[in-house]
Amino acid sequence: MSLLVTGSIGIDTIKTPGGIRENCLGGAAVYFSMAASFFSAVRFVGVIGSDCPFDLAEIFAGRGVDLTGLELRAQSKTFRWTGSYHEDMDDRTTESTELNVLAEAPPKVPEAFKDSKFVFLANTAPALQHELLGQVEKPAFVAVDTMDLWIQEYPDDLTALLTKIDCLTINEDEARMLAGRHNLIRAVQKILEMGPGVVIAKKGESGSIMCNAEGDIFILPAFPAADVIDPTGAGDSFAGGFMGYLAQTGRTDFETLKTAVAYGTVVASYSIADFSLDGLTKIIRRNIDNRLAELRKLVKFKL
Amino acid sequence: MSLLVTGSIGIDTIKTPGGIRENCLGGAAVYFSMAASFFSAVRFVGVIGSDCPFDLAEIFAGRGVDLTGLELRAQSKTFRWTGSYHEDMDDRTTESTELNVLAEAPPKVPEAFKDSKFVFLANTAPALQHELLGQVEKPAFVAVDTMDLWIQEYPDDLTALLTKIDCLTINEDEARMLAGRHNLIRAVQKILEMGPGVVIAKKGESGSIMCNAEGDIFILPAFPAADVIDPTGAGDSFAGGFMGYLAQTGRTDFETLKTAVAYGTVVASYSIADFSLDGLTKIIRRNIDNRLAELRKLVKFKL
Repeated sequence: MSLLVTGSIGIDTIKTPGGIRENCLGGAAVYFSMAASFFSAVRFVGVIGSDCPFDLAEIFAGRGVDLTGLELRAQSKTFRWTGSYHEDMDDRTTESTELNVLAEAPPKVPEAFKDSKFVFLANTAPALQHELLGQVEKPAFVAVDTMDLWIQEYPDDLTALLTKIDCLTINEDEARMLAGRHNLIRAVQKILEMGPGVVIAKKGESGSIMCNAEGDIFILPAFPAADVIDPTGAGDSFAGGFMGYLAQTGRTDFETLKTAVAYGTVVASYSIADFSLDGLTKIIRRNIDNRLAELRKLVKFKL
Repeated sequence: MSLLVTGSIGIDTIKTPGGIRENCLGGAAVYFSMAASFFSAVRFVGVIGSDCPFDLAEIFAGRGVDLTGLELRAQSKTFRWTGSYHEDMDDRTTESTELNVLAEAPPKVPEAFKDSKFVFLANTAPALQHELLGQVEKPAFVAVDTMDLWIQEYPDDLTALLTKIDCLTINEDEARMLAGRHNLIRAVQKILEMGPGVVIAKKGESGSIMCNAEGDIFILPAFPAADVIDPTGAGDSFAGGFMGYLAQTGRTDFETLKTAVAYGTVVASYSIADFSLDGLTKIIRRNIDNRLAELRKLVKFKL
């Protein structure tokens, strides 16, 4: 089924204890699309400025990513982000952010994309996510990512958005912040009461936990990574694998959601194994399926 | 097969955001024995002073815990610990520690216990653990717990001990400290090189990861707990379930170790659900087996 993503395209500078990569391709919609492309065609909506050095058509060539919704604004500049990771690679400091096009009006969802069934609204101001969602006619499953900034600055916008969506993906600390609960299970339960039928709390190297409004729970560790090179885009890669698999199957029952979380986990493990998109561009679907089987073995025990 | 534990008996005062319990029964050997007793007979070695208000014979009545190795020192006082848990229940502050009998000579392993096959040396100074281990004739599987204090104060003693044992259970932050590695997988690999054939890194509410020297890995989340009342003894309860199941089966192959970790995880989840030993004393083996099946379902996904 059709899969739409709206989100950022970024020019990233990434500093890690192991090295620096300057002015590389990033952005939530880019990571998401690359990850999802192993499973499904992707409809891409995002904005760049005239300074964007990347040819997205070339980067996504042969991957089924429809760039009809990629808007180039000649008078604007592309979103830029510089971040530096701490020694443990789970924490990072944002050194600079230049919103540029992201501070302007959001892009338009092209006519041809308005019938999209699976929709991922990558992290941005919840009012913008709301506006983008309003341009899709009758989506079947809408997932949203958010962050601490919006929880703190625009709680009402976020609360309104939560009543309109099917699934929220959120970092564990942000889940606690949004819910005002220290216990993560309690926090997720509280967010479920706010609207979404499914909540996925992301715990970095400790994996994720998914709960639905019916009380089902699924917990999965991350794939063990001895070499984390660049965690940037891990959450969006996770979302791409997750939504890509759902769009591929066309189903959203809890069993399918569980497998989708596992696929998201595996795709994220490849994403963090190299800088920028390099961890994703050098694998094929068979690598993902093989690692999925490995992951299943890692958590399996006999009664 | 026979299972021996050496470790502390404590008079604990526990402060949590939800309440306070003063002068309650605690100590590593006590939590361990209660947890292991669901699976196997336990041989108990530890010391109390004349001030100990608890009748361990009564507390362990009908549970197959042999207290021949419980030493009462009339001139000494029992170990006391006061700790207060932070809002997140994963971190705690030790408010006071009175070592008392723990600062004296260690207990003797009774003659009748010297042929023990499964041995757990609960957390104490590594030199004492070494001395206790020397009193066991020909153990088949020795597991040890340790903590930051010994890693920092007696690294040589600990390093020497690690060459004599089969399994180390250790908190994730302490594993990083011991190995000098930020990445947990790398840290565990480094500790495996120091001697033990198996290392289990405990991650609190995020579960645990077990690796062996052959490169096998097993990862298991904690059982999701919406109500954590008192995390004291969680690690020792985990170890009790783990070692108890190994002693019950008499096997130590990796498949059996995986199931043992799952049992340890489940027993710990009951331990933290109430103050002191109350979470463990009110359940029966069937509760544990039922929750084990639930845990298996929580992490299971279809390919």
